[in-house]
Amino acid sequence: MKKIQEEVVIGIDLGGSAIRLSTVTKRGRIINPRRIGIAGRRYKDHILTSIIYNVLDIKSLENTRRNKVVAVGIGSPGIIDFSKGTIISSPNFPDWKDVPLRSLLERSLDLPVTLENDANAAAFGEKWKGAGRGVNSLICMTMGTGIGGGIILNGNIWHGAHGMGGEVGHMTVNPEGPLCNCGNNGCLEAYSSATGMVRSAVESINGGKRTILIKLSGGDNNKITAKMIHEAALQGDSVSINILTEAGKYLGIAIASLMHILNPEMIVLTGAVTGAWDFFMPAAKKEVEKRAYKAMVEKTKIVPGMLIDSAGIVGAAGLAMKQLGLLKL
Amino acid sequence: MKKIQEEVVIGIDLGGSAIRLSTVTKRGRIINPRRIGIAGRRYKDHILTSIIYNVLDIKSLENTRRNKVVAVGIGSPGIIDFSKGTIISSPNFPDWKDVPLRSLLERSLDLPVTLENDANAAAFGEKWKGAGRGVNSLICMTMGTGIGGGIILNGNIWHGAHGMGGEVGHMTVNPEGPLCNCGNNGCLEAYSSATGMVRSAVESINGGKRTILIKLSGGDNNKITAKMIHEAALQGDSVSINILTEAGKYLGIAIASLMHILNPEMIVLTGAVTGAWDFFMPAAKKEVEKRAYKAMVEKTKIVPGMLIDSAGIVGAAGLAMKQLGLLKL
Repeated sequence: MKKIQEEVVIGIDLGGSAIRLSTVTKRGRIINPRRIGIAGRRYKDHILTSIIYNVLDIKSLENTRRNKVVAVGIGSPGIIDFSKGTIISSPNFPDWKDVPLRSLLERSLDLPVTLENDANAAAFGEKWKGAGRGVNSLICMTMGTGIGGGIILNGNIWHGAHGMGGEVGHMTVNPEGPLCNCGNNGCLEAYSSATGMVRSAVESINGGKRTILIKLSGGDNNKITAKMIHEAALQGDSVSINILTEAGKYLGIAIASLMHILNPEMIVLTGAVTGAWDFFMPAAKKEVEKRAYKAMVEKTKIVPGMLIDSAGIVGAAGLAMKQLGLLKL
Repeated sequence: MKKIQEEVVIGIDLGGSAIRLSTVTKRGRIINPRRIGIAGRRYKDHILTSIIYNVLDIKSLENTRRNKVVAVGIGSPGIIDFSKGTIISSPNFPDWKDVPLRSLLERSLDLPVTLENDANAAAFGEKWKGAGRGVNSLICMTMGTGIGGGIILNGNIWHGAHGMGGEVGHMTVNPEGPLCNCGNNGCLEAYSSATGMVRSAVESINGGKRTILIKLSGGDNNKITAKMIHEAALQGDSVSINILTEAGKYLGIAIASLMHILNPEMIVLTGAVTGAWDFFMPAAKKEVEKRAYKAMVEKTKIVPGMLIDSAGIVGAAGLAMKQLGLLKL
């Protein structure tokens, strides 16, 4: 009889352009992460098949290492019914409607599966192994294409009464502000996400502003990205610097409101947009200092995430371990 | 030996103009409430003496009824250090700085004392015996001179990491909006509190608008009150109707953001301003429907408080009972 070396969990981060998955140890270490591109093949059956194939493959590989995979944790975008383990709908996957993801996977994998919202999983990852270690309450804001959020209170994810909590990207930061993808005006996401910043850049160009973004994008507005805006800002482009400053200003307004409402110990900012930290953070801090109570400003830590791309995988795996009683947090 | 009829608690609501206190039974019934006016005598020793005298008086009265007072619960405005039972500072009482209210009262009264923020106590009162009975998560917004808030999650008050959570009145609802008492611009309180509405009225009058508020106030802007604005609106005064509509609009913007962040089961609106419900609520609902996710709008109840003036007393008493294990919620 083979002796089991270690119990491990497979963490999965289901994103709009890739499925990322990895073995995660009980100490939160990531082993051999994989990235399965799904751009253009986002339909349900393809994604389910890819997940199942890769989990089973990792499971047998771990077996040869004498590690035992005991559970799967998955972080997925979309609105989730946590009691049923169902994806009600997902912005990234239009054909996902009431998909019983947890039971589908459990049946195929013969393993317990924990299903969590992607931003919540990332928040839990940062709490367990990242910037929020030892912190009891935090709000993790994921700044990428959109702005997601995960709220940890007393060490646990706050899901809300109907599983829809933590949507900090859709706080109104300016009632008459630009239209957001959600249909509302002036959401934080409409200013401070990659999408919001690109919209700002296109408006500036269409308004006749001089900017090296025109050169960098080859004159094609559709090619402008948040990363390009950051690069232009690094080269001193004033339009791009203003866009990042404005993104920071509205981020600061949202953070000050969150501090008044929840008074968390820490705010963790993560996601691709945080690469431009030095450009947006001074404006954000200025607003926080202007708007929040002095005692809160002094006591609340506002920090970048530490796990970068792996927060979601680590968090989803940690939640699966917590479910099994393997992790006390 | 006298047989004890019932164990009761004394609930205290410490307000800017009065101390209100009452015996509260384990079933949440209020017996013989008292109101001790303190306007003009808000200094610390006077308030402490008044509280102690009245609690001891009620205690001996309850004794003749063979009820046993087993604890005191007090809801106080201001920033509170919950671990120490200290009032760090209070907007209503300028000479209160680091007052160890809990230990001062416990020593004089020979009873266990539970100290809570006034808005949190009101939220707990509504959860225990008011609009929020049976509800697991709610946000109670107290709309009076200012706008306070209490957040109940999983049946418990969320204090925040430093005891400063629930300050929903200081969410920014319009970054360039009017100056708030807190020093920030465009807080919810600057629009939708009694103070905010009076400011709006004075601005309208100074701007030359025709309104019966001039007649009702005898031409003295300092005499305008939120109640007067409500009365004028009932008489069809368009300036007053607009003020209440604007207050509702910004309230709705704040509620939609709170729903996105916390997705509570219920929002309870209480305080004197809610008397004008029919004037501000349609505008508030319109903003919520425009801004919040459809599924949230359908599922979240937005209701008026049920305990009116006694939410704070009932809540403070309930928290004291909870502390003693007499109340499971």
